[in-house]
Amino acid sequence: MNPPILYSYWRSSCSWRVRIAMNLKEIPYDIKPISLIKSGGEQHCNEYREVNPMEQVPALQIDGHTLIESVAIMHYLEETRPQRPLLPQDVHKRAKVREIIEIICSGIQPLQNLIVLIHVGEEKKKEWAQHWITRGFRAVEKALSTSAGKYCVGDEISMADCCLVPQVFNARRFHVDLRPYPIILRIDRELESNPAFRAAHPSNQPDCPPELPNK
Amino acid sequence: MNPPILYSYWRSSCSWRVRIAMNLKEIPYDIKPISLIKSGGEQHCNEYREVNPMEQVPALQIDGHTLIESVAIMHYLEETRPQRPLLPQDVHKRAKVREIIEIICSGIQPLQNLIVLIHVGEEKKKEWAQHWITRGFRAVEKALSTSAGKYCVGDEISMADCCLVPQVFNARRFHVDLRPYPIILRIDRELESNPAFRAAHPSNQPDCPPELPNK
Repeated sequence: MNPPILYSYWRSSCSWRVRIAMNLKEIPYDIKPISLIKSGGEQHCNEYREVNPMEQVPALQIDGHTLIESVAIMHYLEETRPQRPLLPQDVHKRAKVREIIEIICSGIQPLQNLIVLIHVGEEKKKEWAQHWITRGFRAVEKALSTSAGKYCVGDEISMADCCLVPQVFNARRFHVDLRPYPIILRIDRELESNPAFRAAHPSNQPDCPPELPNK
Repeated sequence: MNPPILYSYWRSSCSWRVRIAMNLKEIPYDIKPISLIKSGGEQHCNEYREVNPMEQVPALQIDGHTLIESVAIMHYLEETRPQRPLLPQDVHKRAKVREIIEIICSGIQPLQNLIVLIHVGEEKKKEWAQHWITRGFRAVEKALSTSAGKYCVGDEISMADCCLVPQVFNARRFHVDLRPYPIILRIDRELESNPAFRAAHPSNQPDCPPELPNK
């Protein structure tokens, strides 16, 4: 059987979440880059719209199905590839993982993604992104104050960590002052050297332009 | 043991999702209304910020814990109260349920909720909300075209239905033309008379102002 194909964009934080999860579970996969900026965005072309009607990345072709939406994909991987679990056994810890995921994936990222910032306009986009990331990170930091061990929830890497690290990268892109969030920063630093996270980093993607790895 | 307490606002679509799930699973609960508009929003007061640092509803006090974020709460209910399952057994159907949830809960609702519309401004807010709801509903309708039976995924009510119905209500509030989405409309109509959905409707909440049940 062919390896799964991940439709991905190097700087997309939602693609990045899935790349981390795939790497942690050691699932080999091929990347099919979809440029969100070339020719007005390859995600809007007819061919890709058939893959993902939301016209965004990621999408994952796996087990004869095409899956979209990053958190749904991570849950599918968890349910079909139980090796290296990304959810804790304890039901309250699972709720905490999902709470952190949802603060980031519903409360922060959707408000600062590319298509929304295009609508907000060039002039206001930095302030807009900073506002929503700051609001969300306050809540994430508060949640982590009771849940974090070495990672977001206890000492095991979970889906929450797969979502946190790309969001910290976005925060830095928009020059958010991260000093008020010491736990977020500590976890991000901790995961920086993890091979699964490192391989998933935008700067290590095949479609990362060599001249601007941190833009 | 005291019944769970749901911090809820009658018109909040995220509170509404949880109300439906609690009703479907026949879990008795008390509602503690949090007005999102009175005195600049009760969700911003110090006392409630301790309950939910995102300063939004819902929050659920249950089993000695306080849970926040509606999708995380629904998963917790599913994992602790397996009666009347809200996720299918089949792993591909589960992925489809979560895909529809994520399109709505990350791709639509966060972009048209109250605090974002305040930032967008009175003049532009209707057009803004319509834009994102329309974009999302196109993708939901496409997803439903291969997954729907009587409900969003097959013939069993799932968490996806708990998210769809409140989003359709929001779409109507912002006068979105729903004619291009016949499957969404059919499922919404199907669920209108379901007792669990009916009891969770904004117009049946203790904090619904009697003079404007459909505003």
